[in-house]
Amino acid sequence: MLPKPQIVNLPVYQPGKPIEAVKRELGLTEVIKLASNENPYGCSPRVREAIEAELANISIYPDGSAVELTEELASHLGVHSNQIIFGCGSDEIIALITRAFFLPGDETIMADQTFSVYKSNADIEGAVSIEVPLQAGTHDLEAMLQAVNDRTKVVWICNPNNPTGTIVPEADLIAFMDRIPGQVLVVLDEAYAEYVTDPSYADGIRLLDKYPNLVVLRTFSKIYGLASLRIGYGVGQPAVIKLINQVREPFNTSRIGQAAARASIADHQFVAECREKNAKGIEYLNGEFDRLKLSYFPAHGNFIMVDVETLSQEMFQELLKLGVIVRGGFSKYPNSIRVTVGSESQNQKFIAALEQVLQQRKVRV
Amino acid sequence: MLPKPQIVNLPVYQPGKPIEAVKRELGLTEVIKLASNENPYGCSPRVREAIEAELANISIYPDGSAVELTEELASHLGVHSNQIIFGCGSDEIIALITRAFFLPGDETIMADQTFSVYKSNADIEGAVSIEVPLQAGTHDLEAMLQAVNDRTKVVWICNPNNPTGTIVPEADLIAFMDRIPGQVLVVLDEAYAEYVTDPSYADGIRLLDKYPNLVVLRTFSKIYGLASLRIGYGVGQPAVIKLINQVREPFNTSRIGQAAARASIADHQFVAECREKNAKGIEYLNGEFDRLKLSYFPAHGNFIMVDVETLSQEMFQELLKLGVIVRGGFSKYPNSIRVTVGSESQNQKFIAALEQVLQQRKVRV
Repeated sequence: MLPKPQIVNLPVYQPGKPIEAVKRELGLTEVIKLASNENPYGCSPRVREAIEAELANISIYPDGSAVELTEELASHLGVHSNQIIFGCGSDEIIALITRAFFLPGDETIMADQTFSVYKSNADIEGAVSIEVPLQAGTHDLEAMLQAVNDRTKVVWICNPNNPTGTIVPEADLIAFMDRIPGQVLVVLDEAYAEYVTDPSYADGIRLLDKYPNLVVLRTFSKIYGLASLRIGYGVGQPAVIKLINQVREPFNTSRIGQAAARASIADHQFVAECREKNAKGIEYLNGEFDRLKLSYFPAHGNFIMVDVETLSQEMFQELLKLGVIVRGGFSKYPNSIRVTVGSESQNQKFIAALEQVLQQRKVRV
Repeated sequence: MLPKPQIVNLPVYQPGKPIEAVKRELGLTEVIKLASNENPYGCSPRVREAIEAELANISIYPDGSAVELTEELASHLGVHSNQIIFGCGSDEIIALITRAFFLPGDETIMADQTFSVYKSNADIEGAVSIEVPLQAGTHDLEAMLQAVNDRTKVVWICNPNNPTGTIVPEADLIAFMDRIPGQVLVVLDEAYAEYVTDPSYADGIRLLDKYPNLVVLRTFSKIYGLASLRIGYGVGQPAVIKLINQVREPFNTSRIGQAAARASIADHQFVAECREKNAKGIEYLNGEFDRLKLSYFPAHGNFIMVDVETLSQEMFQELLKLGVIVRGGFSKYPNSIRVTVGSESQNQKFIAALEQVLQQRKVRV
């Protein structure tokens, strides 16, 4: 067989370790997973009803254009229906953008520690990823602008940034958009937008009218708690959305995913409550990290990157033994872990486990 | 923006018309859809229970590797776990294969009237589709073999072929595989395999050990009745599956899709009953077409292509007014429609509507 040479040795994505596997391997009865930035409060109670209403239609293809969901979401976001495209998670929108835009040798710009799916998809297309170092865990928009050249097709800005949790202020983002050449597509990945409470944060969707080369990614996997159903979306001006849609498979979201998303959009109260509880969780965790004298990046999503002053792979293993799954292995921050903001009791258990590991290590040293 | 030039003017896939839209537009209260080869008997009754058991886990990412489903399917098919890859329908496996294999200018071979997703994905990758004419609605394997050259990366064989419903006999397929160069990947799309009752049909999975350049596509959308949940799969030797897996997004199937597929595999009786009822439906429809003196291709899936001796778009509209949705518009068979084999009463309604249209047209002539 003759595959494209660039795909043969791509690294395989390592997902967060499943709870059941950890219980089995370590003989634990209680395990908490704070590794995949899932919503600890589940999803809107309206979702169950919406799914049950679709159980009679399992054998019928979904509406490939997701007409009703699109209309309801457009109204919710204050955009037109032809400004939205749905994907199997916003992951798929990332893949579609690379598939629509990249020819081998094209360049694309991203932070040097950000969501790995941008680079993995650029690699598949044979595009060259220019990874611009974060400054204090934050996108360096000025340096990213300097990296633009005639071969640049797409720039990725993850805001809040996964895994650091930082945001770029609205003023900086606008200054960046004002200066970047109009033929470069800017992808603003706002998977965690609904969690942000900082007033300096830009709602990217409000910038779309001014910048036709901007596309915003959002998802139902995070605050809406529909990670298992695989549904996310992109929003942009109709011309950009049409281009991405050209490479979309006809039935890329499920009937149940669409129904659950519709029910979720309508439940403003659930989202508001999750945002509030998450903000309190960040406050609690920050306070505990201060008490433990650990430094961390300012968190704006539902996760915090904290420097545990030891190789993250080791900390991961130590926490695992205590029944807490976190995420480590970030190449630019080898001593940091990313922990999801859980429920109050999950956060307390995580801090207790972290403190125990830190004390054990101190004793050993 | 600077998209890949080849994607800008791709035609957009036209899905079967939804029942609700037809009811609304034509003011009809009863409409039957025989346009998308869905299972008229729904899905296994075990699926509902399996989905309900997952409703507490909606906010948790699916197992990206679908470990349990993979093991159960591998056991069901008699292959190893590392021989299977799942996709968002087998559509996605088609897309992944093109994304893993095609560089611009590569060639790919398919029938001139077959599942449109092969060519649309080749187009996206800038590959050249060599479309070999069907003979009597059947793949011309000899001509396809003659079309192979140094640039050929992938050959697609849809078996049964969508939309004609024909099959290639096992002996012909084996002779083809024996002669095709080993570096050419052969994709055998068996989306309708479970419906086939003809003893000359090849079970492609039984050929995998002999031909490392073969990959078989199957789906849960057809006889298993899970079209709305978007889950299909590819089976091949581990080396091929690994290559395709290199370009798969980590979470491309849903938790509910995986659970429903597991429940479906276990229900052999449901599949056997659907196959039997479908075979009776084919027999009935063939008999009625004979009575109406219409010619048709031998059907092996859950659909029949019948020559209605009038432009299919006109027949489509006439049948639509009578509340029956079928599929037309096949460029190589402009006077033929593809009709899904429905339930007994759906088939009778379709024949009544078809006969009415044919008689009206006779009167007008």
